[in-house]
Amino acid sequence: MRYIILFLSLFLVLNTTAQTDAEVIKNLYKTSLTNGNSYQWLDHLSNQIGGRLSGSLNAEKAVEYTKEELEKLGLDKVWLQPVMVPKWVRGAPEFAFIESAFGATTNVNICALGGSIATPFGGIKAHVVEVKSMDELEALGKENIEGKIVFFNKPMQADLIQTFEAYGGCVNQRYSGAMEAAKYGAVGVLVRSLSLRQDNFPHTGSMTYGNLPLSKRIPSAAISTNDANTLSSMLALNKDIKFYFSQTCKQLNDVQSYNVIGEIKGSQFPNEYIVVGGHLDSWDLGDGAHDDGAGVVQSMEVLRLFKETGIKPKRSIRVVLFMNEENGLRGATKYAEVAKQKGETHIFSLESDAGGFTPRGFSFDCNDANFNQVLGWKELFKPYLIHYFEKGGSGADVGPLKTDTNVLAGLRPDSQRYFDYHHAANDTFDAVNKRELELGAATMASLVYLFDTYGLVK
Amino acid sequence: MRYIILFLSLFLVLNTTAQTDAEVIKNLYKTSLTNGNSYQWLDHLSNQIGGRLSGSLNAEKAVEYTKEELEKLGLDKVWLQPVMVPKWVRGAPEFAFIESAFGATTNVNICALGGSIATPFGGIKAHVVEVKSMDELEALGKENIEGKIVFFNKPMQADLIQTFEAYGGCVNQRYSGAMEAAKYGAVGVLVRSLSLRQDNFPHTGSMTYGNLPLSKRIPSAAISTNDANTLSSMLALNKDIKFYFSQTCKQLNDVQSYNVIGEIKGSQFPNEYIVVGGHLDSWDLGDGAHDDGAGVVQSMEVLRLFKETGIKPKRSIRVVLFMNEENGLRGATKYAEVAKQKGETHIFSLESDAGGFTPRGFSFDCNDANFNQVLGWKELFKPYLIHYFEKGGSGADVGPLKTDTNVLAGLRPDSQRYFDYHHAANDTFDAVNKRELELGAATMASLVYLFDTYGLVK
Repeated sequence: MRYIILFLSLFLVLNTTAQTDAEVIKNLYKTSLTNGNSYQWLDHLSNQIGGRLSGSLNAEKAVEYTKEELEKLGLDKVWLQPVMVPKWVRGAPEFAFIESAFGATTNVNICALGGSIATPFGGIKAHVVEVKSMDELEALGKENIEGKIVFFNKPMQADLIQTFEAYGGCVNQRYSGAMEAAKYGAVGVLVRSLSLRQDNFPHTGSMTYGNLPLSKRIPSAAISTNDANTLSSMLALNKDIKFYFSQTCKQLNDVQSYNVIGEIKGSQFPNEYIVVGGHLDSWDLGDGAHDDGAGVVQSMEVLRLFKETGIKPKRSIRVVLFMNEENGLRGATKYAEVAKQKGETHIFSLESDAGGFTPRGFSFDCNDANFNQVLGWKELFKPYLIHYFEKGGSGADVGPLKTDTNVLAGLRPDSQRYFDYHHAANDTFDAVNKRELELGAATMASLVYLFDTYGLVK
Repeated sequence: MRYIILFLSLFLVLNTTAQTDAEVIKNLYKTSLTNGNSYQWLDHLSNQIGGRLSGSLNAEKAVEYTKEELEKLGLDKVWLQPVMVPKWVRGAPEFAFIESAFGATTNVNICALGGSIATPFGGIKAHVVEVKSMDELEALGKENIEGKIVFFNKPMQADLIQTFEAYGGCVNQRYSGAMEAAKYGAVGVLVRSLSLRQDNFPHTGSMTYGNLPLSKRIPSAAISTNDANTLSSMLALNKDIKFYFSQTCKQLNDVQSYNVIGEIKGSQFPNEYIVVGGHLDSWDLGDGAHDDGAGVVQSMEVLRLFKETGIKPKRSIRVVLFMNEENGLRGATKYAEVAKQKGETHIFSLESDAGGFTPRGFSFDCNDANFNQVLGWKELFKPYLIHYFEKGGSGADVGPLKTDTNVLAGLRPDSQRYFDYHHAANDTFDAVNKRELELGAATMASLVYLFDTYGLVK
């Protein structure tokens, strides 16, 4: 009899808990969708501030603005964490054209890649050699490359369902193309924009020269997918065409910037930390609405939803708006460094950095026990059509927080449209749907709530 | 030993079949995403033809165009099925304003609801009474309504995750508002646009007068969500404001139109039919790109993908482009009527009529045995992030084909953005993402392939 009562009590307790979780989560979604603030924040970040490249005036405005907004939420603490960041500036608008063998010119849309050097004053004009891989580059060798512009034209693979996989299959030509081509004496590099759409937007992004000495570095630019096709077609007809481009970008000295951090102190385990974040910096061409304005405002919204719905977390919940994800990861590195110095235990860290689209689920970097723990919560998300719970990467900014025992996660929104806007001038507020953004914030808040409530199983 | 061999053979057969299904499906997705035609068809339907209201010249152009395109696919048969359809015309652009108690006017965005009568020549100007339900209307009664314009202002419920549920909770004010308000002596009806977004687009849609005699009918229009809020705010400040609107729409005599049908004859069971379809007509304000140009081109694409990937169906597969879903359902009724007359057995009918957004799954109208059959295929869809398999409604056009033993289904795309465009001037080609559209077509083709391969379990 005693066992039966014990069993029944346990059943009731479990049942009550499950009920409560479902109700809390329902309330988080309802509040985000009917009384949310993420969309208004994103409007300001996108339309009143705009592109927020590390070290720019806009980035500093974004630091001030988000700090002020977090201070309005009645958190226990809001502060700025200093970090030195690189400062690369684009300079004057880039200019480029294709010149036919007969001297006729066709203007094309390019943009300097982030970190690239400028062309010499007056630009570069040279013959073009098209490749689709580093292997092709190597096979061509110095005799075919020296003095030419190398045109990396591998398109993103359209039949991969998750577009980030297609990105992963091409991003090395953007990141390492110039460094590799320079070794064979190329004078410049053009990279097909990493987009699955045919349009006229060039997409920037980070690149590296590795250990190349300054004297060996060559300028590197992205060309729109439409113009990449034009160039490729013209080359197929006549190898004797030339490409001209000029860009005046440069790398300046590092400058002071900040991560923006807000915290609700935990009531039971204040020394266990949960982080939710996105990156405050963005590329300069658009307004960084999806990348990563969305992640920033969703992360802020998680803490606002906690306050608004009366959740008093057991553990300390931090929103961290990381500076300089795009071209340095300095903010993330600094945050992890300080956390380590202070001996802070970060049990769970969640990043949103895949756009403000309809959330589908999460990707988890954790051990099997914790992954099973998460799978046990899957049913709670079913009413919200959140179905994707897989092991995988989390986010660049939370990456440095990984330990053997904690959990990192990345929000996984629908990825079909992401690369239409990624790092391009059309990454603007109007490309973000209010409901999709708000659903993402509620989905993040729900997972943070569950990790806060149950901690990590061993 | 014999049993072991039998078991092993069975295992091999089953295993081979499963492999093959996965491969066939992979090929369908790949072909749709890398060599699809749905997007080009939609471009033509949207940008070269445009809105295709039943009985309009554009609707007839769409009939001709889609018939010609189906004829290019090498199907076994393509034909037009005659059907008489209603012809309602919008006439001159509607015009409306709010007039303050002091005579100041504010122009607002309205559109006549489909099927509405015109205002008297010169328009209507009257006081406004705002309600949020039929119950409120009834409670107000004739004394408060007579001579006034009734303003139905119930917003769609934002915290419902599936936006079609929110639509279902409000659509009666659009469909029956005028009929009900007329009973209390109202002189006109304004309905808040059925959209979850705040913007300036009025959204049309069908409405009915039921059995009201002609003399009792009152004009009915939709007002944009922004203007609905303005009107509501002004009413809250001062009940003495007036609303003016004029519209010149009218219902003409029925005219001849057509369903467009294409068929691949089944190799083993030619008398078992599978239908995949969408509706060719649309409202007149936009280009009907999502509603239901997307469904039309996805359905055409299913048959094209079968031909392109070399699938030779066992059963007869028909694409049916139904005419007049929006304001009459005459095409669907006619198709089912003819199928019944001819004794055709329709085992499975699938409609796409919820927009060209990322597909999430299907909703099934069928018995438990067939639903379990479908659930057995769920794993095959997992690589494509198709996870939603639920019992529920299918589609208005395939509805009349329901029998006790067959299966109806509706494609269920992500619904967050659907009502941003539904029945409004912004339902245009640029609102459709190519990949999302193509994923939907491949998802439909995969389910059709499975039903064709396995038929219906009893």
